[in-house]
Amino acid sequence: MSLLLRPKLSCLAWLRDYDRDTLTSDLVAAAIVTIMLIPQSLAYALLAGVPAEMGLYATMLPLVTYALLGTSRTLSVGPVAVISLMTATAVGDVVATTGADYVTATIALALLSGLILVAMGLLRFGFLVNFLSHPVVAGFITASAIIIALGQFRHLLGVDAGGDTVLELGSSLAGALSGTNTTTLSLGLLALGLLLLARRMKSLLRGWGLAPRLADLVCKASPVLVVLLTTALAWRFSLQDAGVALVGAVPQGLPVLRFPALMPELWWELADSALLIAIIGYVESVSVGKTLAAKRRQRIDPDQELIGLGAANVTSALSGGIPVTGGFSRSVVNFDAGAVTPAASLLAAAGMALAALLLTPLLYFLPKATLAAVIIVAVIGLVDFSHLKRAWYYSRGDFAAIATTLVVTLTAGVEIGVMCGVLASLALHLYETSRPHMAVVGEVPGTEHFRNVERHHVITHPGIVSLRVDESLYFANASYIEEAIYALVARDPELRHVVLMCPAVNAIDLSALEVLEEVNQRLQEAGICLHLSEVKGPVMDCLQKTDFISRLNGEVFLSQHQAIARLCNGRLPQPKTLLSAV
Amino acid sequence: MSLLLRPKLSCLAWLRDYDRDTLTSDLVAAAIVTIMLIPQSLAYALLAGVPAEMGLYATMLPLVTYALLGTSRTLSVGPVAVISLMTATAVGDVVATTGADYVTATIALALLSGLILVAMGLLRFGFLVNFLSHPVVAGFITASAIIIALGQFRHLLGVDAGGDTVLELGSSLAGALSGTNTTTLSLGLLALGLLLLARRMKSLLRGWGLAPRLADLVCKASPVLVVLLTTALAWRFSLQDAGVALVGAVPQGLPVLRFPALMPELWWELADSALLIAIIGYVESVSVGKTLAAKRRQRIDPDQELIGLGAANVTSALSGGIPVTGGFSRSVVNFDAGAVTPAASLLAAAGMALAALLLTPLLYFLPKATLAAVIIVAVIGLVDFSHLKRAWYYSRGDFAAIATTLVVTLTAGVEIGVMCGVLASLALHLYETSRPHMAVVGEVPGTEHFRNVERHHVITHPGIVSLRVDESLYFANASYIEEAIYALVARDPELRHVVLMCPAVNAIDLSALEVLEEVNQRLQEAGICLHLSEVKGPVMDCLQKTDFISRLNGEVFLSQHQAIARLCNGRLPQPKTLLSAV
Repeated sequence: MSLLLRPKLSCLAWLRDYDRDTLTSDLVAAAIVTIMLIPQSLAYALLAGVPAEMGLYATMLPLVTYALLGTSRTLSVGPVAVISLMTATAVGDVVATTGADYVTATIALALLSGLILVAMGLLRFGFLVNFLSHPVVAGFITASAIIIALGQFRHLLGVDAGGDTVLELGSSLAGALSGTNTTTLSLGLLALGLLLLARRMKSLLRGWGLAPRLADLVCKASPVLVVLLTTALAWRFSLQDAGVALVGAVPQGLPVLRFPALMPELWWELADSALLIAIIGYVESVSVGKTLAAKRRQRIDPDQELIGLGAANVTSALSGGIPVTGGFSRSVVNFDAGAVTPAASLLAAAGMALAALLLTPLLYFLPKATLAAVIIVAVIGLVDFSHLKRAWYYSRGDFAAIATTLVVTLTAGVEIGVMCGVLASLALHLYETSRPHMAVVGEVPGTEHFRNVERHHVITHPGIVSLRVDESLYFANASYIEEAIYALVARDPELRHVVLMCPAVNAIDLSALEVLEEVNQRLQEAGICLHLSEVKGPVMDCLQKTDFISRLNGEVFLSQHQAIARLCNGRLPQPKTLLSAV
Repeated sequence: MSLLLRPKLSCLAWLRDYDRDTLTSDLVAAAIVTIMLIPQSLAYALLAGVPAEMGLYATMLPLVTYALLGTSRTLSVGPVAVISLMTATAVGDVVATTGADYVTATIALALLSGLILVAMGLLRFGFLVNFLSHPVVAGFITASAIIIALGQFRHLLGVDAGGDTVLELGSSLAGALSGTNTTTLSLGLLALGLLLLARRMKSLLRGWGLAPRLADLVCKASPVLVVLLTTALAWRFSLQDAGVALVGAVPQGLPVLRFPALMPELWWELADSALLIAIIGYVESVSVGKTLAAKRRQRIDPDQELIGLGAANVTSALSGGIPVTGGFSRSVVNFDAGAVTPAASLLAAAGMALAALLLTPLLYFLPKATLAAVIIVAVIGLVDFSHLKRAWYYSRGDFAAIATTLVVTLTAGVEIGVMCGVLASLALHLYETSRPHMAVVGEVPGTEHFRNVERHHVITHPGIVSLRVDESLYFANASYIEEAIYALVARDPELRHVVLMCPAVNAIDLSALEVLEEVNQRLQEAGICLHLSEVKGPVMDCLQKTDFISRLNGEVFLSQHQAIARLCNGRLPQPKTLLSAV
């Protein structure tokens, strides 16, 4: 394996066998995804705090780029709620400190996170995302969805309020409540009600005899229908005169390719946010991609995915769009609608281009409250506390990681939230490995297998204690293990042999080696032999580079059974105690 | 074990059996330590950037406090080079940003680090220091010693120069070189020469027939003799008129107890430096204390040590002194000189009180160049690159941790250096556990023991593969292990059973459990059974809280031997392949 990844055109794999049947399937999926993408791309641009067209621009070239370079066949790339929220937060901060403008900063953010992803792919740094644990992602998504939904209430109410955390949003909304625009609120509630109704309509429509496929399509098109309805109302009754905020003029036509100006200072300010957005976007995208690929016995290549997603973000920036990633809901829709190859995404991009060319004049009268309703309905499905409950029963460490991420994200914002989550999960893992489980073991009768004396009926021998340390020996636990051995020795004045059983010792670092040397010395002075058993190959390789083995007061045995057999003078061991299992 | 530590008066343990012989031993040690402490305490105050008397004040009450509360019998607490350097850096930064004065900030730093240590002791947070690995400490001490020595050249040269890193110090010294005061330099070189000579004189004096004990005493007293000589020269020849910097007026008498003013803002600014100083000081002190205690088969109590050292720093602050800890060189001298109990420290404190009452007028003419020479000679012994060499041969991870700490401390300063060191060692550990070693195993003939097929002659069976994962399964390695299992399955189309041998799996977190569920599902679809063997008690306890075991496509076996015996239809396994060891 070379150090650098050689990116490939993934599309070559599926283009070869492309035929008319596949095209038909892809075309149907593309149509449905396009219908979803129109309102969502506008809404997520609103969420990101930038003009609506930037959402549209993020749905053309990025889809084409990912279709050519990505390895998931059914992933639908584009604007996504959580990433748009993170964009709004990051850009808001940078605009406040540097005085840059929103649009420039948002495009720079897309470019940077794209470049970071490509660099991670080329350098094979994809492993970094593994440090973002499932509990942290789950807590983060739920908290972000709550913040997003709460943040949209200002558009529903037609008031001026804002904030990055639930506290800020809550107090800001409460203060602005008296200024509620009733027309806006009525329109927003109408949109929200219709969208929520549409979610439950699928079975209803089927009940009325509609073909399942058609019923499904009606439900998926419901956001577009709601957009059309509320736009028509706003136009017909000149609702802007009643104070209803509209999307306003959206430039007609396709995006113009333009390389963002070099702004090293702005880029530097955005770098950490870009990294977070890159990682969160990648993790979300890959997990969706993996799930869908598994259903059709396909595979995705995590390193090549970095290239595909990174290039998609770079082209989004070049065409003046917002950061993108593979979204969960649209990808599932794409998959369920029968998309077979990334050609579905190419066709959806073409659909969006048509929309940009033809439909933009209609968007002038689109009420922002409608887009807020689309966002709210899209994210409420992401709020999921079942992870929290499951983690509570499974392990307190996982629970703590979810709870930390959830609470910090809600109360201190998305960037601090995800960082605290990652740090908390790593700290908990390190804490647990710093106080490892240790077990005194004995032989399970009739076998050569050794288990914990407190859990199993096992045979032990006087004068010999076998201690199994259930962790690699490293700096954070070396002293703890040292103390445990001394405590064991202090308990039994008859002790002559300590066997350290090492099947779970996957590494011994220099700090731990120094502690072992010290223990060996101390035990020797006390007339006790220190033996090792079941030392693994890689660990033994390391130890043999030092003089530790030659200075070891006892022996190194291949297996624990051999150790006990030898220490009992080569005779078959005579059972002394048969401890009862707890 | 209660959550909070109940601090105790450790002195009760040794006061009971105190007798005249012990007193004599302690008295001799106290006299020698006092003779060392006088120049060192002045020099380390100079190093910390505060008036000389603050060094003296740190050698009375702190020694008494530690003698009453500490658990090491021979540790000599007081000003120490590395901690004084860290104090200078931290206080310098805070003075520059907040405009506080040096003395107030230094006292606040001693108070804060003392309170932090006491709090860590009471809350049993002592385990935190385990995350500071030996390689990091070794690299840090060596780098600090180089910075300290280089920083003293300005006093030797009599020029105005400064800086926190070798680069700053080097360029600042180079620029100031032309202003060298030759009188100061001559005096400094004289002091340095005499001190270095004294180090080699022990054997010389013995050669001349001096009693070994006396020869030793002369060597240890050499700094005091050099202080006396150069002070006399400065006084006799009015060297201040030639531009030689002197210590100047030092207030005569004992320190006045005074509670530092409440300055929350200053404290907040100093908090992170105080934490670092507390941890570094504690680690240095405990490692000295442990080494000395082990030589006399004594033990120290790490949690109580936090209380003892913390209280020593608090009393140093109350008496207007600088931060203190247990120093390596003085403690070894104290031990070698025959100190039996902490009474030696009480007597040394009394000696220092006498010195403060009687000798301070003499200090007026003490040249700063002499103190610089004392510091340089004290720290050159700390420069030790053997750790680096040892780590290079032992493991690249440990080497990287030392090298990072060393290089960053030298080039970016002590605080960033130690933090980068800790982060680098943790990151390397996490990185290694994120790509764990895995081995396909087979049975060692004639035993029930299973080892790596690539290292041992072992028996394997067609259709069954046994994979030993050498790490706990957690979020950072779950995907990596998943990919490895799929790769293994893809290699062998005849495969029917995958046995995951888990003796090294010390925990399975929620992320890994989800991956295992996915693997189980995928293997089931491919007609392959997933089995587990040698799952440890604590891990099994966790798994049994979920429905994973019931949904597992295969079985959980107590031992790998049982797994293979059962999967081969209960008959004794017939060897198929006898792989040759690599």
